[in-house]
Amino acid sequence: MNFLNEIAQRFPDAISLAAGRPFEGFFDLDDVHRYLELFRARLAARPGSDEAAVRQTLLQYGRTKGIIHELIAEHLRVDEGITADPDALVVTVGCQEALYLTLRALRRTERDALLVVTPSYVGAQGAARLADLRVLPVRESPEGIDLADLSAQAARARAAGLNPRACYVIPDFANPSGIRLDLAARRRLLEIAGEEDLLLLEDNPYGLFGDPAGPPTLKALDTTARVVYLGSFAKTGLPGARVGYVLADQRVVGGTGGAAGGGAGGLLADELAKIKSMLTVNTSPIAQAVIGGKLLAHGGSLRDANARETAHYRANLRHVLEGLERRFGPGGTGAGNGPNGGTGSGDPVPGVSWNVPSGGFFLLLDVPFPADDRLLEQCAEEFRVLWTPVHHFYADERPRNAMRLSFSHLRPEEIDEGLNRLADFIRYRSRD
Amino acid sequence: MNFLNEIAQRFPDAISLAAGRPFEGFFDLDDVHRYLELFRARLAARPGSDEAAVRQTLLQYGRTKGIIHELIAEHLRVDEGITADPDALVVTVGCQEALYLTLRALRRTERDALLVVTPSYVGAQGAARLADLRVLPVRESPEGIDLADLSAQAARARAAGLNPRACYVIPDFANPSGIRLDLAARRRLLEIAGEEDLLLLEDNPYGLFGDPAGPPTLKALDTTARVVYLGSFAKTGLPGARVGYVLADQRVVGGTGGAAGGGAGGLLADELAKIKSMLTVNTSPIAQAVIGGKLLAHGGSLRDANARETAHYRANLRHVLEGLERRFGPGGTGAGNGPNGGTGSGDPVPGVSWNVPSGGFFLLLDVPFPADDRLLEQCAEEFRVLWTPVHHFYADERPRNAMRLSFSHLRPEEIDEGLNRLADFIRYRSRD
Repeated sequence: MNFLNEIAQRFPDAISLAAGRPFEGFFDLDDVHRYLELFRARLAARPGSDEAAVRQTLLQYGRTKGIIHELIAEHLRVDEGITADPDALVVTVGCQEALYLTLRALRRTERDALLVVTPSYVGAQGAARLADLRVLPVRESPEGIDLADLSAQAARARAAGLNPRACYVIPDFANPSGIRLDLAARRRLLEIAGEEDLLLLEDNPYGLFGDPAGPPTLKALDTTARVVYLGSFAKTGLPGARVGYVLADQRVVGGTGGAAGGGAGGLLADELAKIKSMLTVNTSPIAQAVIGGKLLAHGGSLRDANARETAHYRANLRHVLEGLERRFGPGGTGAGNGPNGGTGSGDPVPGVSWNVPSGGFFLLLDVPFPADDRLLEQCAEEFRVLWTPVHHFYADERPRNAMRLSFSHLRPEEIDEGLNRLADFIRYRSRD
Repeated sequence: MNFLNEIAQRFPDAISLAAGRPFEGFFDLDDVHRYLELFRARLAARPGSDEAAVRQTLLQYGRTKGIIHELIAEHLRVDEGITADPDALVVTVGCQEALYLTLRALRRTERDALLVVTPSYVGAQGAARLADLRVLPVRESPEGIDLADLSAQAARARAAGLNPRACYVIPDFANPSGIRLDLAARRRLLEIAGEEDLLLLEDNPYGLFGDPAGPPTLKALDTTARVVYLGSFAKTGLPGARVGYVLADQRVVGGTGGAAGGGAGGLLADELAKIKSMLTVNTSPIAQAVIGGKLLAHGGSLRDANARETAHYRANLRHVLEGLERRFGPGGTGAGNGPNGGTGSGDPVPGVSWNVPSGGFFLLLDVPFPADDRLLEQCAEEFRVLWTPVHHFYADERPRNAMRLSFSHLRPEEIDEGLNRLADFIRYRSRD
């Protein structure tokens, strides 16, 4: 994504419908001080604790698997209905490290492969490349994942002598499509994972901002340790802490055989910790304390902690969908499980439509021309608005007639102006 | 080192001459708050800055290469006489990530190899294993590195069809041996690196506690961008921040060819940043601000900031050396460039001797029996003292008749009691 960052830097007055950052309006450095003190007080209140022990925990080298594992387990219980063994958690340097650790552990030989619902988060492809793990795309469907294609790709991989070990998926408001899997699809996905003997790598950075009456996570439905749960606090905690985690409660007989080495019957989490000890040693306990303090401040519930943020993201999604209708007519396709049947008054442009997610940070906008990097550059220069070319989310990088629009970090007036510029660009470009 | 951690946990009342941690006596969480505020004030004082910009820098996702690069460049100028281009710095999650990024970038094919002065820091071996980079040992000599063996190993590697790309070395108070290279050895090492077309990976966690009149770093002597400088703030800053860095000012024509991909004529630092973007995205700006604030509090000089710590480490080294002499007679071998000619009054034990480093956290103690993990366990259980078996610092893991003794984190009275127990164990074991 370096090219996209360069474009953003070259045109600082462009409105970004590209950046997937969380909204900054509620950030407050004073909270950081407060969270540190809350966590310090918790450490000090432990039986047998003293000032030296607190200092050691917060400031010295520490436990590779982290120091806020019990608080994270409590958060998973409160917010997600997940029963997590704290010892099966590894606190990581953001979710990206959790992803890399998991993929590196899964890669034992060059025949191991990862199935990835595609289009998919570029960081998953990047981590797989870094771990020298082969990536096999699985088609996304309007319902989320094409389950027939999942089975077909797993079978095809085996026929080619490969060993498909896991499937990476964002069930809640995928990146880039914003699609959320419904309960039936989740159950069926778990069944197929069992049939095909695949782990499911569930990445869930956005789920917490969704309707609490929505479907449970795959991990909450998982009764046979099929799911490795990848957690992020970048959106629900604070991006500047760079704290994430992985819940890996699988029993590993004889080790994963990867870099982690042996470990007869141990937890996958312990294999990941061995890799982490060679990569980052441990996650900054100061950074962990910031997130730990935020969890303490809200009784473990990041859903409660993010009430304002949730309202902001949902309002922004409605605002973008209404804004698209006002500019292009009722072009929402409904693919994405959101409310449908717009009454948009805008003038349609042939070939312009969009999906309607029910939450998350993103949606996909189809356009009647290949929306590639060159065109983004032109749009940035002449129309001062940024979007993400969708080909970046495919391994083949072939240009597609689609853009990812992001709206998480903007205020309503910025969305209005950004959509005005985007509509101008699309009408201009469609006349070519 | 998981086994060593387990032993330490099983025998919490054992005195550890094994742990290489910095001394905790001067740690203070209030400093963390203070450093954060100092760095915040610096950000706020920048031309055109406002509260929102400060919040964004400290709390949002940020620059992959980091936000304290200018302060680090200033520190390198003040403390090490190194002229560093801030853009050639990548701030990392501890020095361990810096090491991994560098090794991963150097590994383009399975024929690439890393020369490692051995015995060597286990984290270097671990990072190389994780990066699938072959390790070729180079002999350590009493002066630090056997330079003839370096040339011989490079030639042998090439004859075997391998591509030796770099040599990893800790020139200042090596781990485990504590040896410091003198100026002549440094100059000769740089020459040989040029002749053999090797990069030198200079790891320098302990140098700052040494005599300021000591030899300059390899990087300060480097006029042809031969040296990649790996920096740690774990000992000089605060381990709990988990912040390190790499200075990689090499021009990379056509990219390293590894995971980093192309990059015609760009900086190696930018190749490392691409890898980091797939691994940890960026180093926590909150953690960076803690280190940045400490740098600001001391005008960029960590030598000044660590005046108390330096006195502590030097006193501890003297205390250990005198303590060994009192228990075993004048057994210091002088290998290690420290003061020699002890007048120890202790009863010698045949086969017991030690080297005499002039600084650092460690020394090597030779004993008349293979000091392996099994024996460490017995020593921990029956004598309540821990040390590090030296075979862990060799790739072949063959037991050696030597222990690494660490003394950085202890108080004098703990050193006395630890050496008493160790002497009892050695005399007991030597009678077998």
